[in-house]
Amino acid sequence: MNRKFISTGHLIDSGILSSILNLIIDDGADYQIVRFDLGKEHKEESYLEIEVFTNTEEQLASLTPKLVRHACYEKSAAEAVFFTAEYDKCAPDNFYSTTNHRTEIFKDGKWHKVLQQRMDASIVLTDKGFICRKLRDIKKGDKILTNAESVRVFPPTSLTAKEDFGFMSGDVSSERASNMAVKRVADTFKEMKDQNKKVVVVAGPVVIHTGGGAALASLIKKGYISGLLAGNALAVHDVESQYFGTSLGVDLKSGKPTHEGHKNHMKAINRIYNHGSIKSAIEAGDIVDGLMYAVIKSGIPYCLAGSIRDDGPLPETENDMIKAQTEYAEIIKDASVVLMLSTMLHSIGTGNMLPSWVKTVCVDINPAVVTKLSDRGSSQTIGIVSDVGLFLNRLDDLLD
Amino acid sequence: MNRKFISTGHLIDSGILSSILNLIIDDGADYQIVRFDLGKEHKEESYLEIEVFTNTEEQLASLTPKLVRHACYEKSAAEAVFFTAEYDKCAPDNFYSTTNHRTEIFKDGKWHKVLQQRMDASIVLTDKGFICRKLRDIKKGDKILTNAESVRVFPPTSLTAKEDFGFMSGDVSSERASNMAVKRVADTFKEMKDQNKKVVVVAGPVVIHTGGGAALASLIKKGYISGLLAGNALAVHDVESQYFGTSLGVDLKSGKPTHEGHKNHMKAINRIYNHGSIKSAIEAGDIVDGLMYAVIKSGIPYCLAGSIRDDGPLPETENDMIKAQTEYAEIIKDASVVLMLSTMLHSIGTGNMLPSWVKTVCVDINPAVVTKLSDRGSSQTIGIVSDVGLFLNRLDDLLD
Amino acid sequence: MNRKFISTGHLIDSGILSSILNLIIDDGADYQIVRFDLGKEHKEESYLEIEVFTNTEEQLASLTPKLVRHACYEKSAAEAVFFTAEYDKCAPDNFYSTTNHRTEIFKDGKWHKVLQQRMDASIVLTDKGFICRKLRDIKKGDKILTNAESVRVFPPTSLTAKEDFGFMSGDVSSERASNMAVKRVADTFKEMKDQNKKVVVVAGPVVIHTGGGAALASLIKKGYISGLLAGNALAVHDVESQYFGTSLGVDLKSGKPTHEGHKNHMKAINRIYNHGSIKSAIEAGDIVDGLMYAVIKSGIPYCLAGSIRDDGPLPETENDMIKAQTEYAEIIKDASVVLMLSTMLHSIGTGNMLPSWVKTVCVDINPAVVTKLSDRGSSQTIGIVSDVGLFLNRLDDLLD
Amino acid sequence: MNRKFISTGHLIDSGILSSILNLIIDDGADYQIVRFDLGKEHKEESYLEIEVFTNTEEQLASLTPKLVRHACYEKSAAEAVFFTAEYDKCAPDNFYSTTNHRTEIFKDGKWHKVLQQRMDASIVLTDKGFICRKLRDIKKGDKILTNAESVRVFPPTSLTAKEDFGFMSGDVSSERASNMAVKRVADTFKEMKDQNKKVVVVAGPVVIHTGGGAALASLIKKGYISGLLAGNALAVHDVESQYFGTSLGVDLKSGKPTHEGHKNHMKAINRIYNHGSIKSAIEAGDIVDGLMYAVIKSGIPYCLAGSIRDDGPLPETENDMIKAQTEYAEIIKDASVVLMLSTMLHSIGTGNMLPSWVKTVCVDINPAVVTKLSDRGSSQTIGIVSDVGLFLNRLDDLLD
Repeated sequence: MNRKFISTGHLIDSGILSSILNLIIDDGADYQIVRFDLGKEHKEESYLEIEVFTNTEEQLASLTPKLVRHACYEKSAAEAVFFTAEYDKCAPDNFYSTTNHRTEIFKDGKWHKVLQQRMDASIVLTDKGFICRKLRDIKKGDKILTNAESVRVFPPTSLTAKEDFGFMSGDVSSERASNMAVKRVADTFKEMKDQNKKVVVVAGPVVIHTGGGAALASLIKKGYISGLLAGNALAVHDVESQYFGTSLGVDLKSGKPTHEGHKNHMKAINRIYNHGSIKSAIEAGDIVDGLMYAVIKSGIPYCLAGSIRDDGPLPETENDMIKAQTEYAEIIKDASVVLMLSTMLHSIGTGNMLPSWVKTVCVDINPAVVTKLSDRGSSQTIGIVSDVGLFLNRLDDLLD
Repeated sequence: MNRKFISTGHLIDSGILSSILNLIIDDGADYQIVRFDLGKEHKEESYLEIEVFTNTEEQLASLTPKLVRHACYEKSAAEAVFFTAEYDKCAPDNFYSTTNHRTEIFKDGKWHKVLQQRMDASIVLTDKGFICRKLRDIKKGDKILTNAESVRVFPPTSLTAKEDFGFMSGDVSSERASNMAVKRVADTFKEMKDQNKKVVVVAGPVVIHTGGGAALASLIKKGYISGLLAGNALAVHDVESQYFGTSLGVDLKSGKPTHEGHKNHMKAINRIYNHGSIKSAIEAGDIVDGLMYAVIKSGIPYCLAGSIRDDGPLPETENDMIKAQTEYAEIIKDASVVLMLSTMLHSIGTGNMLPSWVKTVCVDINPAVVTKLSDRGSSQTIGIVSDVGLFLNRLDDLLD
Repeated sequence: MNRKFISTGHLIDSGILSSILNLIIDDGADYQIVRFDLGKEHKEESYLEIEVFTNTEEQLASLTPKLVRHACYEKSAAEAVFFTAEYDKCAPDNFYSTTNHRTEIFKDGKWHKVLQQRMDASIVLTDKGFICRKLRDIKKGDKILTNAESVRVFPPTSLTAKEDFGFMSGDVSSERASNMAVKRVADTFKEMKDQNKKVVVVAGPVVIHTGGGAALASLIKKGYISGLLAGNALAVHDVESQYFGTSLGVDLKSGKPTHEGHKNHMKAINRIYNHGSIKSAIEAGDIVDGLMYAVIKSGIPYCLAGSIRDDGPLPETENDMIKAQTEYAEIIKDASVVLMLSTMLHSIGTGNMLPSWVKTVCVDINPAVVTKLSDRGSSQTIGIVSDVGLFLNRLDDLLD
Repeated sequence: MNRKFISTGHLIDSGILSSILNLIIDDGADYQIVRFDLGKEHKEESYLEIEVFTNTEEQLASLTPKLVRHACYEKSAAEAVFFTAEYDKCAPDNFYSTTNHRTEIFKDGKWHKVLQQRMDASIVLTDKGFICRKLRDIKKGDKILTNAESVRVFPPTSLTAKEDFGFMSGDVSSERASNMAVKRVADTFKEMKDQNKKVVVVAGPVVIHTGGGAALASLIKKGYISGLLAGNALAVHDVESQYFGTSLGVDLKSGKPTHEGHKNHMKAINRIYNHGSIKSAIEAGDIVDGLMYAVIKSGIPYCLAGSIRDDGPLPETENDMIKAQTEYAEIIKDASVVLMLSTMLHSIGTGNMLPSWVKTVCVDINPAVVTKLSDRGSSQTIGIVSDVGLFLNRLDDLLD
């Protein structure tokens, strides 16, 4: 069996061509380069025409969507083919599973952009055009795309990342100077604010423990942050720090562990329960500062997702994971930059929903966290291995 | 202000006396040892009578519950005092917040054991006696204990841990021989099986990725495991490995990363969606081996807790965190041993619910995970820093 | 067999009594408390008289030095007994091996302080009194102490550490606020400078890579540092950064990895070889700033110890490990504070030489490093898990 | 300025072309592709002809060696140019600094292979041809290559690594199954033995602590290992384990920490000092098993390099780092496989000396160690994140 594919773009710098060739060979198939025009100059794109050979039709059917997801598309693009869902949540075996890159579908002789791009979804044709739909959201009657032969995918080039951020994505090391990284992030924040673009923060409770809560609150007050994604614990420890000056029982001023201080977070939860919610506690004047105060007073959208390890949880916490994912997705919609702070759980959750063209910066003291994010498909993530408390304080110092 | 406390037990070996004295000083109070009888011989208990001095009544009120939680009790134990809840979920500010240690309450002139012991709960007097009740489960009319002066707490002595397990809890290092640790765990498993005691496993998806899935399934088939606590991802990757021989896209036989293999988990989820559930897929003969097969066929209880980062989730996943916590608590009830495998999230979640006399072993390649578990109050946890795949295979080899 | 021991001091807070009892039981021996007076008030010391029982004389001989090293001494102290070395480097099997705590020897009816205290040494009686002598430095004719029955050891109490530093030693977590830790270190530095006490820094090359070089140089210029212990790499990367503005090939201003920049360190080494030494390069005006410039210009003593992984090495590097250890020991003599920055190798090397009463602070982004230092016997080490570049910059900001 | 370069080989799969283009742009230069023939089929090589443009002669002089080290060579290769050293250890500023890849020099109209290939050296023309010479070994009169225009470098293709080892180099994750990795290493060991090829092991003391010592000794006895590179500590803890059954004071049979057991290593050192050497202790029948016994009895070459943190050191330890590096280099000469076990220090030291075509496998429980090795230029390293004790035991089980 054989099929011809085209691929264009910055195929070399981005490593895309290398992936394409390896993919074919690793799948037990073979290839013949029909034509390859390497961009003669730096900003020129390359053009690849390649013929792929397999032993069986099945092999070709399996290989095609893989190539498509790596920026190849069929030379003679096929018209989109659909399967009409017979049951809710049920796609056919051969449904096209999305990447987080810009995607187009060939229908009625032309290419159509896919909306609500995210990874690991099916593509459904609706009145509004093609949209990404999670398997669990499929309804009986949905027209689900099945043929990869009608799909075109545009991965971001490393070129873009470099020009925007000035350092390589995927470059994770605790042996780099964080000083410059803070400045770079500060510049990006300014730029986003000037351009009225959305910066969303994903934050773990370590932000509070390491003394970064006030700095993050300050960034919100200054108008740099458009949304907050977190879990119950972030709010619990923020409220604890407002009520008792401790976080996980460590005094945030003296740094001394307070004996029995780990009971403070339960007292804080109970006090909020008595108010009915954090919001009510703020309205009652019982909480007058801190991160949640800044979030609620500024009116930016936020979601506290529940988890199996929650104490309380606080009334504002969304305990249904399906609803929490929906709220997260709503908040990061149209975000231009996402800053992830010391939380693997919520960062991976957010990464799953993000299209690949959103700039994503992850700050964590543990290099493994950033590596894991990239492994899970959020390869655009720029990792900064640093102390998130010191990082946020310095970031806040740099921004008016 | 002054108040006299008693404490008895292995106060030295366990470090309890040291905690008591430090706690008093760190709180700005002072003490006078009234009497101290050090156990003359190894197995003999010690007896402490101590008088505590504070400047204010408030200070004494704040210090007392801390001392109580560290195994002191008032010399002249006071009768239990209750606050009747006026609203659901609302305890008074001075509610007594539990530890995970055995606890007794003084009422009608004698000591009563508290049931359903767990940390971070209130104590409520019910028809069945005193029970631990989470703040969110408090109902209007509940009689909530408020005076620590009527409470007695019995922390486990390091003596116990040592005799049972032969190595110190809190001893976390990647530079220890895991070989012996595996043998120790195997011996414990045998003992538990012989005595018809309950072993519950908490497992992360790394168990599958590192090739430990078959070994864990084998241990279930052999009857060593009485319950499984996990998340959606464990089941997803187990099912993926059954359908495609991969886990997170890595071929489990060759170890080669499969190009595009990370799409396999979405295909696996879709296939289960088409069956309706994992159980149905097993009944239909579509899944004939693996971890979830062993769990479902053996009939042991399990709970897959959802999370913000889930794909799917699978139909068996419990997406409501309140319900998931309730199911977890049900499954670990009366467990004698809990084995935690490479999942910080579910391990902390489980640790929160466990009384301190349950033997807890945590295996993770990252020493920080065990440290964090202990920090969160599950100080009885014995940590083994090792490769969970190799660990499980060796454990299975040692058990018939 | 039986023997009576005395121990006095803060036996409870420090955990010493707990160690003593556990040690006896773990050794298969037994005990009887003869008398125990617990310090009635906080600052009062405790007094222990304990009788130890063993089955054999050998067991008692083996247990005695262990008890001695844990702050017990024989009730009826024996006169010191010596073995006269018959060969260089050869101690008898039963030589008394030192701890890093203050030690006294009973001779001629009174207690004598041991000089040059360090761990893992023998004690030799010389004209100047008792001194710690490393096994390799033993000379034929040396009078080597053999009987632990004439030794008294004074471990520091946790009390001391707390009062000095305000937080517990052994408390290692990446989830603590570094902000306060920096302030605490700054206060200590000021205090040491005011009191004309010695602060010695042990620094790894990560100091340069993370952009902390200028800050450390500034601290030296301001007179806060009295000595520098490091390896060849620190100097290589400092010189590279002066010549090329890069460290390990990463541009220190832009943070961009420089292609081929990793060749810069070889060029830097060659340029120094052509000058003859770093010192000559400075004198020739070829190096006008940076860490080594500050060190050499300020005239503080330093030692660059060689290692198996060195490039070059630079002329200033001491390649003989015996000599390097001697130089290190010379420089830390009488140091009051040692600050260890991101180098496990040199920190353990230094820790081996330090008496336990020297305040030791270790800053590293990897929590395992501090844990390892404590495991090796330098239990007085206070660990700060942070980003060393940001840490040094903030420290320098806080000090004039 | 402009210059034409040629590059041939597997330029795409290996990512070499991508590096070349990025390098030119990052250096502020520009390019024009003159000709690019992409290998039409998988095993076919590609051919690149590229013209590079710079603004200044200096820029071109700086860019050229970088391109050369990335597999480009000048279209019209220039004759080799030499600088005659005027002083020992002094190369000119523009000396050609080597990579660890196969290298050829153009002289008298043809290409000559460079001998003793290693990274970070100069190339000197001697009677025996071109050889790599470390800067410190340069002697007055040496003819040092200065023009990169006469150099051709052949980096290994990822193709090679994959075919040999079946998994990608650079793939470091604790979430991979080590089981297969052990089998792969076992197969490689068999193959090497059958072909009489050299396997050298670099081992840290963690091998002993984690209970892997006997397994490694067994592999030596079975004839799989041709040389051992380590430090003083490996031998100390091996000898300690033979004399006392402990390693760092932890009982290797029971896993229990032995009180005061950390004194055992000093006793072990003293006992060896009394014998004069490990070898003498073996001859005297005082050591009859263990790792050093296997090494010395089998007669394979070994080197124990000293370090600043050594206790003792043992008589067999080489304390002069220059000599130790020379011995290391001698032992790994002609090695086909190097297995690095839990020692960053000695692994980086060894990596510095190895040509890039030697298969290098690094086993460590800490993923950062492997990442660091690759960062330092040993990019051929295959990392296995696992428990080294369990790993060695399993490896030994698989080999007769």
